[in-house]
This record gives sequence, structure tokens and C-alpha cells, in this order.
Amino acid sequence: MQVINFVTDWYNQIMKTDKKFKRSACAVANTLDILGDKWTLLVIRDLFLGKKTYSEFQKSPEKIPTNILAERLKRLLSADIISKQSYQQNPPRYAYQLTQKGEDLAPLLKAMLIWGNQYIPGTISLQRIEKIIARRQAQQRNRQ
Amino acid sequence: MQVINFVTDWYNQIMKTDKKFKRSACAVANTLDILGDKWTLLVIRDLFLGKKTYSEFQKSPEKIPTNILAERLKRLLSADIISKQSYQQNPPRYAYQLTQKGEDLAPLLKAMLIWGNQYIPGTISLQRIEKIIARRQAQQRNRQ
Repeated sequence: MQVINFVTDWYNQIMKTDKKFKRSACAVANTLDILGDKWTLLVIRDLFLGKKTYSEFQKSPEKIPTNILAERLKRLLSADIISKQSYQQNPPRYAYQLTQKGEDLAPLLKAMLIWGNQYIPGTISLQRIEKIIARRQAQQRNRQ
Repeated sequence: MQVINFVTDWYNQIMKTDKKFKRSACAVANTLDILGDKWTLLVIRDLFLGKKTYSEFQKSPEKIPTNILAERLKRLLSADIISKQSYQQNPPRYAYQLTQKGEDLAPLLKAMLIWGNQYIPGTISLQRIEKIIARRQAQQRNRQ
């Protein structure tokens, strides 16, 4: 136990060094401060699947409440994970897309998906989603 | 837009097929139902770092509130992500450890850590944590 205490005390120590962080200097803790809830990564999943608009996000089967969706989009914009472009003036409508920072969440989402599919029977596999994405990309190529 | 709608409608459809799920059949949504909050993955991080007991978890710099820690340990036990062993009778004390299902969260935690360290300046890198873990393992080997 003594060795473990030495190491974990050391880790506790280096995580505490920088006072600018809300909870600690741990990269996991800081990521969770942005993404750690039941909804944010579902909006990011939808963006990876090609959804762009408020109404498309709302059509997802989890039925995200409209106030939560608005708050999460705001938070993702201010964290520079997504950007938005106006596509209609009256009433104002925006199309959202992942920034590079957002695109770089792909490995995290993939790891979550693989684990979930492995341990929660009946969930949709990465293979099945990849087929969907491949079909989408093929159709987009055919249009061009 | 029509092609995207076709694909996302299809995805919406297959996610809705199985009624046994709380929100959808999406592996990400179901994983978030277990792990989607600001604290659960920090307890799992601590277990990966070698912490085992209630008081060790509480010493982490994020200062997890005691009622949240108790609730999260209960949830992780019932999800079979951790197991516990009694190490003291009066008062009862338990040592927690990751099950295989819990150990398999390593890629998820690693992806979170890499992203966080890349985009949140000042957070601790995976390399630094790996050094800590290597030192711990070396010390454990030396004890044997």
C-alpha cells in the first residue's frame, strides 16, 4: 500500500500544481468539464453522422430537450468544438459543423462506441455505423 | 440535404428499433447513461492509477463529494465495472478494483486524456502519467 500511496500522492500533487483549473490539471477532469454529461457527446455523434441543424438534432431518437440542446450548442461553440454558419435570415437559422478540435473527438467517440457495443447487448455496432457512413459518402460522391 | 436526411433517418430508425433501451439502441447513448457525468470517469481514472479505497478516492484533487462518491461506486458495482472486497470488519471497509469490463475502459480514458491534453493547455500529458505508472510498476516489481 505504501508504494501505491507514494505514486498516487505524487499524481495528486502534480494535478494540483496549476491553480488556473476549475478542479485539477488532469486532462480527463478538464475534458469532463466540457463533455461530461448525458447529452453533449450525442450532439457530437449527430454532427459526425452528417446532421447540421437544430431540427435534425431534435429528430434523434434520444429526444434531446430543446433547452438542453440550445445550452449544449452554446457551450460547444464557446469551447471551439463546433462552428456555425447562418443559412437563413428570417427567422434566423444556423448550420453547425465540427471544427478540427471537434473532429479530433472521433477516437473518444469510437472508444465509447466499441466499449458500449461490447458490453451492452443489443446496441448498434461500429461496423453497422461504418456501413451507414460509407453509404452516405458513396451517395455524396455519386451526386458530384 | 436529401441524401443526408436519408442516411440520418435510417440511423434514427435502427436506433429506435429495440424498445428495451432507456433512450435508444445507440452504444454511445447507453454508455453515457452509465458514465456520462463529471465524476464517474474520475473514479475509474483513480482505479487505473492504483487507488482502491474510499479515502484514497476522496484524496484526489477534484475533491469528490462523499455522497456522489458513494452513489457512483454503487452504480459502477451494479454495472459490473468494479468489484469490491472487504478488508476490515469493524467498521466495514472495502477495497475496490476494476473488473475486466472496467479495465476495457482504458482506450476510452486514454482517448479522453489525449484530446484533453492536446486542446487544454497546462493539463498533464499521457507521457507523464505513463512515467508515473511505469515507476509504480517498477517499485512493485522491486518489492516482490
